[in-house]
Amino acid sequence: MDSRTAPQPTSEGYRILADAALRDYLGKLPAVAARLGGAAESWSISEVGDGNLNLVFIIRGPGGGIAVKQALPYVRLVGESWPLPLSRAHYEHLALTRQAQLAQDLVPAVIHHDPALALTAMELLEPHVIMRKGLVAGTTYPRFVDDITTFMARTLFLSSDLAVPAAEKKEAIAAFAGNHALCKITEDLIFTDPYRIAEQNRWTRPYLDATAASFREDFDLHVAISRLKLKFMSCPEALIHGDLHTGSIMVTEGDTRVIDPEFAFYGPMGFDVGAVIANLLMAYFASDGHARARGERHAFEAWVLQTVEDVWTQFARKFLDLWRSEARGDVYPATLFEGTAGAARLESERQAYMDRLFQDTIGFAAAKTIRRILGLAHNIDFELIEEPKRRAISEARSLHLARTMMLDAPSFTSISAVTRAAQALRDWQPDFSQ
Amino acid sequence: MDSRTAPQPTSEGYRILADAALRDYLGKLPAVAARLGGAAESWSISEVGDGNLNLVFIIRGPGGGIAVKQALPYVRLVGESWPLPLSRAHYEHLALTRQAQLAQDLVPAVIHHDPALALTAMELLEPHVIMRKGLVAGTTYPRFVDDITTFMARTLFLSSDLAVPAAEKKEAIAAFAGNHALCKITEDLIFTDPYRIAEQNRWTRPYLDATAASFREDFDLHVAISRLKLKFMSCPEALIHGDLHTGSIMVTEGDTRVIDPEFAFYGPMGFDVGAVIANLLMAYFASDGHARARGERHAFEAWVLQTVEDVWTQFARKFLDLWRSEARGDVYPATLFEGTAGAARLESERQAYMDRLFQDTIGFAAAKTIRRILGLAHNIDFELIEEPKRRAISEARSLHLARTMMLDAPSFTSISAVTRAAQALRDWQPDFSQ
Repeated sequence: MDSRTAPQPTSEGYRILADAALRDYLGKLPAVAARLGGAAESWSISEVGDGNLNLVFIIRGPGGGIAVKQALPYVRLVGESWPLPLSRAHYEHLALTRQAQLAQDLVPAVIHHDPALALTAMELLEPHVIMRKGLVAGTTYPRFVDDITTFMARTLFLSSDLAVPAAEKKEAIAAFAGNHALCKITEDLIFTDPYRIAEQNRWTRPYLDATAASFREDFDLHVAISRLKLKFMSCPEALIHGDLHTGSIMVTEGDTRVIDPEFAFYGPMGFDVGAVIANLLMAYFASDGHARARGERHAFEAWVLQTVEDVWTQFARKFLDLWRSEARGDVYPATLFEGTAGAARLESERQAYMDRLFQDTIGFAAAKTIRRILGLAHNIDFELIEEPKRRAISEARSLHLARTMMLDAPSFTSISAVTRAAQALRDWQPDFSQ
Repeated sequence: MDSRTAPQPTSEGYRILADAALRDYLGKLPAVAARLGGAAESWSISEVGDGNLNLVFIIRGPGGGIAVKQALPYVRLVGESWPLPLSRAHYEHLALTRQAQLAQDLVPAVIHHDPALALTAMELLEPHVIMRKGLVAGTTYPRFVDDITTFMARTLFLSSDLAVPAAEKKEAIAAFAGNHALCKITEDLIFTDPYRIAEQNRWTRPYLDATAASFREDFDLHVAISRLKLKFMSCPEALIHGDLHTGSIMVTEGDTRVIDPEFAFYGPMGFDVGAVIANLLMAYFASDGHARARGERHAFEAWVLQTVEDVWTQFARKFLDLWRSEARGDVYPATLFEGTAGAARLESERQAYMDRLFQDTIGFAAAKTIRRILGLAHNIDFELIEEPKRRAISEARSLHLARTMMLDAPSFTSISAVTRAAQALRDWQPDFSQ
């Protein structure tokens, strides 16, 4: 399947399913009926979509529950004035299917997919919560590092040129090429708008006015974000999730699932790894804003910083392990690195590859941070800090680190350099008088 | 159109056209008949294919001539044991059509294309010769620099993210994704085989035995060629010709045409620019081997080196001019670089972009050189030097420079550093006793 077989925005047979129609539709699906049990009339249906784009329903029956996601032909957050192709449901399903092959048990199981309706029914994740909500509450997740690094190492490595023969990789890139409307959202909202005057931008006024202005006037920053944008647009290294923030991760103490891959396409790996690291760093800087008493969240904050380090370290270790054992791609062929000396040289090249990926990760993490503070889409880490000045202080610390990361990524020679820099900004008091 | 609409290897309706059948087929095409004039029976048909892959016919009538190229379902040079998809004719036609839109008059005009027969009829280029033959003969071409740099600047810039909106670019990448069998030839023959024991490799024995062995044993070189291979496989920067050596260029004193774009796909720009520069450098090093008297070809050699410099310099100038006037892509948006200071910063970033492209060019030029001396496909620049030792001396000089370029591209900070290094090797006497 490729972009040309995906349903089009005006796809025939599409209709938005209201409660009765949804019940009727689902009642006719044996796989759904089997999971929910009982009669369709007895099922409870509630719309819970708190995302920006789609309708999301939870349906429960005597035997269990499912989640149903239906794409709307526009951005839900904005309305019909911002159309968005239904084909994103196709790409989300394609990505979910592929991720399930590569990192089973770390994505929700798909029960049913209807291309014409742009609708997917999945297992209901219970008692999972959106990780971002847990982080705001100061909850730590002991399985998270191991799971998310397995997810990233496996989905990224195993879809890359290191693991996949060139022909198959080219076809896979083509299969996601049609998802460009979703890529365009990223290109605009992450890589462009926060650095210029754009109607949709917002930030914590008046405290961050001067900072926002300085981001709009810093041409070195504009060059840096443009280089990252070019990399995002023209480096199809692997099948990336494309929106891997803590709002796309559902967790319990013992389970982790990555959801919502509708932004998936072949792009630079650092964009996914950077997203995870950026959102952890934002949780770190926001934490102080949620503390009711001084020092109350110190243990949580220490866990977050340790998690930032572990995410990179374990991701890199797992990625390298896969490279050593599952390098079935056409690059770095074994015949060019034979013998002990060849193996040693290849191993040092693997480290150099990870160093380059780390630099990308630093840059993309910075981009993901800046857009959440100066752009359209903000996150509850900061938004739930009610007192504006207190929120602005957390945001300013986060922005300060992000700016350095984007302008001078090479100065971060290891992940601990990042966490040290974060820690050094923990109690920094920005001067809002300027 | 994309890979899935391209004809498949076992395409229905395909047959190899023998003389009578070809005459019959062409006679029914009004566009062909109009160009050739007279009755089909009066046309002369001769097979002239001296390439490695296809059948090529020249057909002449009282009114004019055409060239007809038909793909075979295998590599002509090797035979049916090396199958190659007919779809390459589709991609060649797609590329020719696109190149004609971008750089009109620098490619042959297409008169007729038959996807099922994998056949294309084009204008007959007369009195053009294959540029490589002219270079062997010591001929200089005054129009060449201006034409080839226009071709490269326009086809590369105008198909890149700098000129094309992201959605269109992604669809264009997908449209060429199916040409992977031709990419695979490059991946194997250029980026892999010359650096390992491969049955098809050959070199001028016994003189280059030790050099060939040293290339197979140099792991730094293997890392360098592998990085270039990864770039070739995963950096779809622009629609590249993919085989832009002097055998793919037809010239007269006043005209230049680029032919045979069947290797076209979205790849790194430096691969095309590097191909032109590498083949000029090989012509330079081969020149001494064709001299019947000492110094006879000095003026030609000076022209070649000047041409190497001018190719890069004028290409870069034209590419930058296009960037300043036709940047309709989504990267480096104008709104991020407003005012005098913004314009200046963007201009310095353009220079930095060209510096990175120059580094790619140096590396790919080295790769294109090495494969012609140690790999399967050699070229007449060297092959027509009959005396093996004399040939080996030219080849060794060329290899010496190529190796330095690949291992230490950053030491070449300008194109004149390349020509100076070439000149310094002009009279170097390799020691074949080792």
